[in-house]
Amino acid sequence: MSRAALASSALKARVRRPSFWNKIHTADELLHHFPSGAYIGWSGFTGVGYPKILPIALADYVEKNNLQGQQRYSLFVGASSGAETENRWAQLDMIARRAPHQVGKSIAKGINEGRIMFFDKHLSMFPGDLLYGYYTKDRANPRLDVAVVEATAITEEGGIVPGASVGASPEIIQMAEKIIIEVNTTTPSMEGLHDIVMGSLPPNRKPYLVMGPEDRIGTTYIPVDPDRVVAIVESRLPDMTNDNAPEDATSQAIASHLIEFLKGEVDAKRLPSNLLPLQSGIGNIANAVIGGLSKGNNNFHNLTVWTEVLQDSFLDLFDSGVLDFATATSIRFSPDGFKRFYRDWDHYYNKLLLRPQTVSNHPEIIRRLGVIGMNTPVEIDIYGHANSTCVNGSRMLNGLGGSADFLRSAKISIMHTPSTRPTKTDPRGISCVVPMVSHCDQTEHDLDLFVTEQGYADVRGLAPRERARVIIERCAHPEYKPMLLDYFNTAEQICLRKGAGHEPHILKNVFAMHNALEETGSMKNANLV
Amino acid sequence: MSRAALASSALKARVRRPSFWNKIHTADELLHHFPSGAYIGWSGFTGVGYPKILPIALADYVEKNNLQGQQRYSLFVGASSGAETENRWAQLDMIARRAPHQVGKSIAKGINEGRIMFFDKHLSMFPGDLLYGYYTKDRANPRLDVAVVEATAITEEGGIVPGASVGASPEIIQMAEKIIIEVNTTTPSMEGLHDIVMGSLPPNRKPYLVMGPEDRIGTTYIPVDPDRVVAIVESRLPDMTNDNAPEDATSQAIASHLIEFLKGEVDAKRLPSNLLPLQSGIGNIANAVIGGLSKGNNNFHNLTVWTEVLQDSFLDLFDSGVLDFATATSIRFSPDGFKRFYRDWDHYYNKLLLRPQTVSNHPEIIRRLGVIGMNTPVEIDIYGHANSTCVNGSRMLNGLGGSADFLRSAKISIMHTPSTRPTKTDPRGISCVVPMVSHCDQTEHDLDLFVTEQGYADVRGLAPRERARVIIERCAHPEYKPMLLDYFNTAEQICLRKGAGHEPHILKNVFAMHNALEETGSMKNANLV
Repeated sequence: MSRAALASSALKARVRRPSFWNKIHTADELLHHFPSGAYIGWSGFTGVGYPKILPIALADYVEKNNLQGQQRYSLFVGASSGAETENRWAQLDMIARRAPHQVGKSIAKGINEGRIMFFDKHLSMFPGDLLYGYYTKDRANPRLDVAVVEATAITEEGGIVPGASVGASPEIIQMAEKIIIEVNTTTPSMEGLHDIVMGSLPPNRKPYLVMGPEDRIGTTYIPVDPDRVVAIVESRLPDMTNDNAPEDATSQAIASHLIEFLKGEVDAKRLPSNLLPLQSGIGNIANAVIGGLSKGNNNFHNLTVWTEVLQDSFLDLFDSGVLDFATATSIRFSPDGFKRFYRDWDHYYNKLLLRPQTVSNHPEIIRRLGVIGMNTPVEIDIYGHANSTCVNGSRMLNGLGGSADFLRSAKISIMHTPSTRPTKTDPRGISCVVPMVSHCDQTEHDLDLFVTEQGYADVRGLAPRERARVIIERCAHPEYKPMLLDYFNTAEQICLRKGAGHEPHILKNVFAMHNALEETGSMKNANLV
Repeated sequence: MSRAALASSALKARVRRPSFWNKIHTADELLHHFPSGAYIGWSGFTGVGYPKILPIALADYVEKNNLQGQQRYSLFVGASSGAETENRWAQLDMIARRAPHQVGKSIAKGINEGRIMFFDKHLSMFPGDLLYGYYTKDRANPRLDVAVVEATAITEEGGIVPGASVGASPEIIQMAEKIIIEVNTTTPSMEGLHDIVMGSLPPNRKPYLVMGPEDRIGTTYIPVDPDRVVAIVESRLPDMTNDNAPEDATSQAIASHLIEFLKGEVDAKRLPSNLLPLQSGIGNIANAVIGGLSKGNNNFHNLTVWTEVLQDSFLDLFDSGVLDFATATSIRFSPDGFKRFYRDWDHYYNKLLLRPQTVSNHPEIIRRLGVIGMNTPVEIDIYGHANSTCVNGSRMLNGLGGSADFLRSAKISIMHTPSTRPTKTDPRGISCVVPMVSHCDQTEHDLDLFVTEQGYADVRGLAPRERARVIIERCAHPEYKPMLLDYFNTAEQICLRKGAGHEPHILKNVFAMHNALEETGSMKNANLV
């Protein structure tokens, strides 16, 4: 019996190129494409649109044969993948190298215990650097060995129609020696939802002719060289997403300050009444902000979104009639959100576009459109730098993501954070406002506005010493204000006297709060001066 | 006698709009436009193309009337101005606020002693933020009070033909309530050398349709609302530039490593044989690199340049036949360089374009063209961050400039620096490679290559701990290597054990080298572990 005859009718309906039917395989038949040491690319971004069948089959194989730590890969994905794939790979010590972003307890553990070589690169640049050959430059073969990409359909040309994310799939496919496509027959086909532009190399690059979030500049599928497609696999596994983080009093207070600021900008005519395209991160603050925008008394309308990832709160914003159009590189809805999205597909379909992360995060477009960028950091400092990645300077959380892509080039660059976080022994043991960030991902030259539940600090046009006063006064928690002010005043006095007071610091004490946290469980025990 | 009759024939020849002849004034007649507290914009960038007559007349007035510290201004210039203007203003305590870049001992002193409120913003963004009204948002009048702009000609429409720089003049002119034009009749008219695009506001911005350094997208002059031109002043003062910093053995060694790297990239086919457009900063390392490219045995040809500022070395590169085209926002030649440039105008004229800094430094174009970005920092750290602005975290040098505009978006982002610098007591008392930069302007996510006279470290695709090893091994000075390695190894051991070892640091000791420098005059006396 031919391979084509073995295929389900559901699969054949999705694969519109009949010559591909002869490439249909089961996962077990394909494991030989993944020798230990291989360089692998996956589709996926923020835990949606990632391949499942092959990663799970490989994990099962390693587990069954006790190959933990012996079968290891370099794994490149646009951003994070599903927990049942990359996090399980990390549990089984199958990841030697990983970039540029990740989510999962085991993978973070692997990175911070030194087993996984991880680097985080701006998500807008990662696919380009991959295409330049930067990540394969020390190999005999400058390509990735194999790409595993999830599709919700395959076109007559063999083009891949992605699922809920585009991410780095175009460049991963361009760079891969072999391509395996997992066609998901459970997820509805998302054909028409994507706008694909392939990676290109200088000096022959062209402008991205996007003048608004709704502009199409590409194809609805990822073009593929059919000869490099070695196999098609049917998948019936959905994206494993979680429920969204719920709003709480703190995130609502932050949202309310932020919206007050935006209304002030509209009143001052520095923003149009429908604002400018919004970018918003993941998490409960982002949800509270997006939720707040749809509240009737705020009177916003005809909003648009240019962002990296869309959460459920954007469905609410559509439904409230406040949001006209949204574009991103992934839709990371909750299980209920996806149900709602598929059910009302006809309602949402024409208001959404998914783009490659090279495009969604490109400074060219972010700057042109004047995006309003909003992100949550680990900590900020009194002069306006932000740490987005490493706790106490050393411990990696998830990676930089697209935070710096947006915050560098946005018209208004906003960092929102609770003013404190709890430790085991102190409900406010961590101040998110510190003298100097212990790791710097966003510089003072990038950020315009800081928002905590205490208030907002608008630092546009302020010199560092002015910034410090307003950030401490308006954003720090009252329990940390005296300590921070004391540090700043003393540093200012010492440094001005020395003629070195542009951005006053006492380097000896600058991380005293971080040290107190490590040693005593609370930053309150720090001696800063 | 009418004002027009008072004008020199040289001035009339330059001002092709006769109605402007009636606006011709002497500086003394214009001082009333500059009340203390005024917000002022000047033309100029890297000490060329700045106004001289009015700034000097105002300084003379303050000096003569003992108004030091009583007549103070907020001063906005694209980048730095001439020493006889902004530095003298600082000497006379005439500057209350300054952005986004400056050069001069007195102005640095004023900033670091707290008299001048200075902030450094990405040069690509400063003019846009000015146009947004960010820097005038707390004033009743959202405009600048007055702009003083140097021209080498005025067109029939009243358009301003700039001199040796464009900088932020378009946006400063757009934002100014009143415009005073200093027409320089000594400097040859540079008409045809500029490509001007005015600032625009989202959501109505368009792409910059530049596909190569030679592409023109604008006008040869800055369009001006003639009604806002309150005066024309004749100037016969040249730009006061200095000689270029000469190459030395260190800068030549750095250049030679860097060129070796570039040749390797060509061999590996990651760069075309004529490279990609080059960006290079100011200083002796930049000069050595540009000089090195023209050496015959390196066999480069058809090079192009997309940069912020051109120095004399680029004239040599033209003359050697190696350079096809160069574009920037200023030409900061030495006095001899300018002589040479004017003498051979016909030779250079068609190979050069000067653009607004919004365009020359725009990430849209830098990323599209795949620019090779090269800059010199204050210091770099073992994980690949760089400090471009503040010595020992606090003392401002000149400001960020365009370093981050280029280094963030370049195809290859290069930091070159001597591995050490001298102190008063130790010829190698400062290591330019440190555990953690004391101020972070460029992040680990931005930089690809570090070059010192010791060698180069190519960190593309490396995880932080891998980067640390190669940066210490290849870039640090042998006198500092053991100390840095000891720090890194100890930090790694401690942090991996804690499960926090992605980017290992010992925050208690991380600035021990900086503290030793302050206390003992040499970083060698540091105790890092």
